[in-house]
Amino acid sequence: MAIAVSSVQDICRSAKAAARALAQVDTAVKDAALEAIAAALVDRSEEILAANDRDMQLAIESDLSAALLDRLRLDSGRIEAIAAAVGQIVALPDPVGEIIDGHRLPNGLDVRKVRVPLGVVAVVYEARPNVTIDAAALCLKSGNAIVLRGSSTAMHSNAALADIAARAAVAAGLPAGCVSLVAGGGREELAELATQRDSVDLIIPRGGESLKEALAAVATVPVIYAASGNCHIYVDASADLDRAEAIVMNAKTQRPGVCNALETLLVHEDVAAEFLPRALRALGDAGVLVRGDECTLAIAEQSKAPDGGRGAAVVEPATEEDWASEYLSLTLAARVVGSAEQAIEHIGRYGSGHSEAIVTGDTTSARAFQLGVDAACVYVNASTRFTDGGEFGMGAEIGNSTQKLHARGPIGLRELCTFKYLIEGDGHVRA
Amino acid sequence: MAIAVSSVQDICRSAKAAARALAQVDTAVKDAALEAIAAALVDRSEEILAANDRDMQLAIESDLSAALLDRLRLDSGRIEAIAAAVGQIVALPDPVGEIIDGHRLPNGLDVRKVRVPLGVVAVVYEARPNVTIDAAALCLKSGNAIVLRGSSTAMHSNAALADIAARAAVAAGLPAGCVSLVAGGGREELAELATQRDSVDLIIPRGGESLKEALAAVATVPVIYAASGNCHIYVDASADLDRAEAIVMNAKTQRPGVCNALETLLVHEDVAAEFLPRALRALGDAGVLVRGDECTLAIAEQSKAPDGGRGAAVVEPATEEDWASEYLSLTLAARVVGSAEQAIEHIGRYGSGHSEAIVTGDTTSARAFQLGVDAACVYVNASTRFTDGGEFGMGAEIGNSTQKLHARGPIGLRELCTFKYLIEGDGHVRA
Repeated sequence: MAIAVSSVQDICRSAKAAARALAQVDTAVKDAALEAIAAALVDRSEEILAANDRDMQLAIESDLSAALLDRLRLDSGRIEAIAAAVGQIVALPDPVGEIIDGHRLPNGLDVRKVRVPLGVVAVVYEARPNVTIDAAALCLKSGNAIVLRGSSTAMHSNAALADIAARAAVAAGLPAGCVSLVAGGGREELAELATQRDSVDLIIPRGGESLKEALAAVATVPVIYAASGNCHIYVDASADLDRAEAIVMNAKTQRPGVCNALETLLVHEDVAAEFLPRALRALGDAGVLVRGDECTLAIAEQSKAPDGGRGAAVVEPATEEDWASEYLSLTLAARVVGSAEQAIEHIGRYGSGHSEAIVTGDTTSARAFQLGVDAACVYVNASTRFTDGGEFGMGAEIGNSTQKLHARGPIGLRELCTFKYLIEGDGHVRA
Repeated sequence: MAIAVSSVQDICRSAKAAARALAQVDTAVKDAALEAIAAALVDRSEEILAANDRDMQLAIESDLSAALLDRLRLDSGRIEAIAAAVGQIVALPDPVGEIIDGHRLPNGLDVRKVRVPLGVVAVVYEARPNVTIDAAALCLKSGNAIVLRGSSTAMHSNAALADIAARAAVAAGLPAGCVSLVAGGGREELAELATQRDSVDLIIPRGGESLKEALAAVATVPVIYAASGNCHIYVDASADLDRAEAIVMNAKTQRPGVCNALETLLVHEDVAAEFLPRALRALGDAGVLVRGDECTLAIAEQSKAPDGGRGAAVVEPATEEDWASEYLSLTLAARVVGSAEQAIEHIGRYGSGHSEAIVTGDTTSARAFQLGVDAACVYVNASTRFTDGGEFGMGAEIGNSTQKLHARGPIGLRELCTFKYLIEGDGHVRA
């Protein structure tokens, strides 16, 4: 394929022109375009795999880690999964045109608050090439043009995927420029993209902290940062301890590397002596290392099996740093607290505002926790792992926000939209 | 009164502590506090007037313009108006606790999306001391702590108003630190305030472009910029010309200095020869100067009354700069266009996304305009002057946003809030 090298500014301007047209495209046309993209991905799998091979060769030569190589690698099964994910986005309701609010004013003017696309959304991402298609499908469905900027590691894969998506979308009737990829993966392109205020309406970074910091330093375009999650579960004095154990184990071990996994366990002192020994055994069985406060350490010491039986989790002393850590691994901080209020204070001090849970049988504690914890998602008697657009019935998500403005929690199709007020009269003037 | 001089950081931290408590205060207590503030303002009018006198003396000595002196000046009538405005905010519904969305998931988890306060809102403003109270009342009603930073010109007035509001609020049961004023009005305090990411959730500037630029250069805290408005009215070929004239005159002349006033008139070529002469006469009678394109100039020339009768508006040639100007005065740009599509394109190119109107009798034009114009408020057959929280039934507003994220259009009580998801289960874990 021939790549016409355009400047970042030219790409963004074309995207803006496309966005104007795309905002008015009917759902049926957008859905047909997504179906065409899904079909083209499968039809042109060999091209994608050839491009991915080139990236993989270069990555192996530059000694990329096994984990990063696995993220980068595509095979026919993964391509089919990417295509299937596009199909799932087709099935979601179109957010564009939804009436959010509306009424007739006393003077007879009719006011409607209607959801409309943001315009041009830029997505900046790291190794995984599937983001190219996931992000493009979410943006097109919500009527936005997308400008993609992947990492140089995946440049051939991303170029093949973006080219296939763009061609299929345009052939199906979407405007040219609706999907584009910034060719270079360098910091210069990032800075140029992040300052296109005249054409780019939002940038969403999907990647690690260094990417976010690089963006924060240069961006003049609005950014929604997908979040880190330092999530807590507080086991209240009145908790059903079987429930508590199941929830803690689920939140910590079901998928420890994700942002809604448990990082710190808080236990009320009245149940600590009963709950912690059993929890430490279960955590130990799952290979979890615990960093505990003094009280947790003392209980762990007392409850050691004298006969060297089933091993409990290793418990090391926690430092201040542990309370603020997002381990994303099989490590868990643990602390005994004197009250629900103290748990809420701990979370207020160290939490990242992502997902927090209480396990309790007491309505007063449940209500205090829901009112007092300032986070995107506050759970009563459920695992933090449910924070997810799919689980919440919002469909696919482009990330999870811990910021308070615009989007908080899962960023789905509606969060990729803004709104406008439509006002209708018959000659109304203001007195 | 004794002013304890605290650092900006200390003030913001106290505000954050206050915000945690304030988020859980019942509506009745917040309303009683607002009533107490309104009463205290009237009771302590003399203190306020004495402080205002000091500001006025200093302002006169430093040769402030008559317009700025008038903005700065308080009298007992103005204080009563400020107190009455607080009373109107009491009457508005409390946005905190509103359920925005909610449903039961297939797995039985109950999810509610509930409106909650942002936390700490900083308002940065210029000469008018009434903003001190207007902004404080809106923030308290929406459960937010407020940090005020006024200009040095109004420092004594603002200090008196903020002190009265803070004392009345705390005496009525709101947490200490819920209303505070940064003592200095300099750029250093602005920069310090704009970088308190750990405690300040949002900054709203109310002032001119230089204030916004100063803030944009330093802010790391999220900012919602109240907007400039380069507003257009397009008179379509099918417009009722009586309506069109009434709407144009209202939008241009009823209050020309505000952001929702008309700045550019676009007229379809099919009705230009009939509409422009009568519009120019009415505009001329109202003292409006017109900057027109060639076609407007030609029509103005042809329609000059040969007998020196009732004078039409003076029409000067428009330059490129005129299309982008927010005059905020009795000047109007005017252009003849060939179609609704051309009007939409003109607005897309030069508009600031505030308020745009079409006058038309044709449903196709109306729909094309509503779909194609990307602005906070899009009007059909009504004046742009209705863009206002009060007019929209939202109650008082803290400004109008032309940005697309979080708040677009009037920024009222709901826009001073975020939301959180509350999720309830009975031991739910993710499979």
